[in-house]
Amino acid sequence: MTEPAYVAVDWGTSSFRLWLVDRAGQVLAERRSGEGMLAAAKTGFAAVLQSHLAAVEAPSHLPVLVCGMAGARNGWVEAGYVDTPAPLAAILKQAARVPGETRDIRILPGIAQRDASAPDVMRGEETQLLGALGLDGASDALVCMPGTHSKWVRVTDGTVVRFSTFMTGELFSVVSRETILSLAVANAEDAEDIASFKAAVKSAYEAPAFAANLLFTARSRQLLFGGTPAAARETLSGTLIGAELAAGLSGALPAAGVTLIASGRLATLYRHAFDALSVTVQPIDADEAVRRGLSMAAAAIWTK
Amino acid sequence: MTEPAYVAVDWGTSSFRLWLVDRAGQVLAERRSGEGMLAAAKTGFAAVLQSHLAAVEAPSHLPVLVCGMAGARNGWVEAGYVDTPAPLAAILKQAARVPGETRDIRILPGIAQRDASAPDVMRGEETQLLGALGLDGASDALVCMPGTHSKWVRVTDGTVVRFSTFMTGELFSVVSRETILSLAVANAEDAEDIASFKAAVKSAYEAPAFAANLLFTARSRQLLFGGTPAAARETLSGTLIGAELAAGLSGALPAAGVTLIASGRLATLYRHAFDALSVTVQPIDADEAVRRGLSMAAAAIWTK
Repeated sequence: MTEPAYVAVDWGTSSFRLWLVDRAGQVLAERRSGEGMLAAAKTGFAAVLQSHLAAVEAPSHLPVLVCGMAGARNGWVEAGYVDTPAPLAAILKQAARVPGETRDIRILPGIAQRDASAPDVMRGEETQLLGALGLDGASDALVCMPGTHSKWVRVTDGTVVRFSTFMTGELFSVVSRETILSLAVANAEDAEDIASFKAAVKSAYEAPAFAANLLFTARSRQLLFGGTPAAARETLSGTLIGAELAAGLSGALPAAGVTLIASGRLATLYRHAFDALSVTVQPIDADEAVRRGLSMAAAAIWTK
Repeated sequence: MTEPAYVAVDWGTSSFRLWLVDRAGQVLAERRSGEGMLAAAKTGFAAVLQSHLAAVEAPSHLPVLVCGMAGARNGWVEAGYVDTPAPLAAILKQAARVPGETRDIRILPGIAQRDASAPDVMRGEETQLLGALGLDGASDALVCMPGTHSKWVRVTDGTVVRFSTFMTGELFSVVSRETILSLAVANAEDAEDIASFKAAVKSAYEAPAFAANLLFTARSRQLLFGGTPAAARETLSGTLIGAELAAGLSGALPAAGVTLIASGRLATLYRHAFDALSVTVQPIDADEAVRRGLSMAAAAIWTK
């Protein structure tokens, strides 16, 4: 086994992932847990990190590079922002060092859009963008990064020009659990209904103003025509994603289509959504992208 | 004091209102409580009604007319629906009698739109429409009825032609309490910020696809520029209402503008919203409308 060169950490709001990496960028060990920012803010960031470093037997001199919400104001150490227009290369140069630690631990900054009419922030996605597009980026990319708070990002010549956050994932969660629609989707289990999903994507894409009405049809349809809980759930999901796509695709579409950075179930779901609208996507795995971004940053910081 | 002629009840999902009314339609006594359908389904509809009838000393022969969710499938007695196109006069003819009661108790039906591409239902609003527009209705009215589940209704020559439900009120409730935006609106108390509200209405009206993004700016703006919890709350409220108005106003606007049936704070809020878009409204008090609708129905049923 080769020697570890550094530790990479993707520390989100509700998830923690750690990789022990060698000089060539190969992963030697991996850890995943639910100890995201919200949990770590209670138990202590240093303690959470130390427990995982011990589990992978990381030598005490090994440096650690972190991206994500650990760098937020309510996180471990505030890592600031690079302002738009934000060259991806600038991210590498503004890592904040965690004080009071003998080990060299740094947190990458986020990106801020200080536009009073469209203020926005990201933390973690900038590192995915770096890993997915590289330092020079594409000449012109429209990037969709689905999630609790989906990001749509315009990257031109390696620079984040503009981006927008959509609360799609979080809206789906509260609408399906906390509103009257919870009755319609109850016991949907894991059953899928791709046809209902695609139909809802199209409807909301074509008439996004009606999103709050289309959501309600998930219940009215069941009352008047019957229908499965799975169909109702896919209607909610498709409506919210369709409205997001109507906004995200409202600008000029690059020749290569949309760069979709996602993993697992979300990647599949969004590919169905883009397919329903006949939009070409370039899929990139989000897990790989963030690891690659952290590797690029670690190499730039510690391998001078 | 004149003799009571009947009892009128507006029995919603979460509220119960009862009026003791004389032959001339004058209110002799009133009761209001939180024993809506959800509460009454547990304690028993008959018991709830009886306790309020006793409180106003209603004679045992006095008939009772009910509208609203008490007539839903999960309510007291399912009162069915009049299907669109639904003449308001048809509502009077399809009241369902509650079985097993010595007193004559009837529940008015709702209205159903059995259109597979736009299924929808209402219960209670049809009685408000009856009271607000009368049996013949206006020749052409576009009616906005704000609430937990706002209704937009097209009424032509006394007939409900088409309607749409928007989950605006319920979305505001869960978004401001259960998502990350709860941090932005915390401790907003009752402070108002009409300028922020109107700005959000306009933004969402102009770009409704961006609603899920505009909601998030309530938080981003606070992070990057500061701002009060009240401003954030009005941004959420204005965004959701602005998107609703974009849909509701997407058809032809009658010469008289929009008929706004609402009471209290919601009436004020929606008048600000329409004002931000320079749309004329004809305001009608919702409480009075439902009482008048129940009176018209009671007169038709029991005063042959």
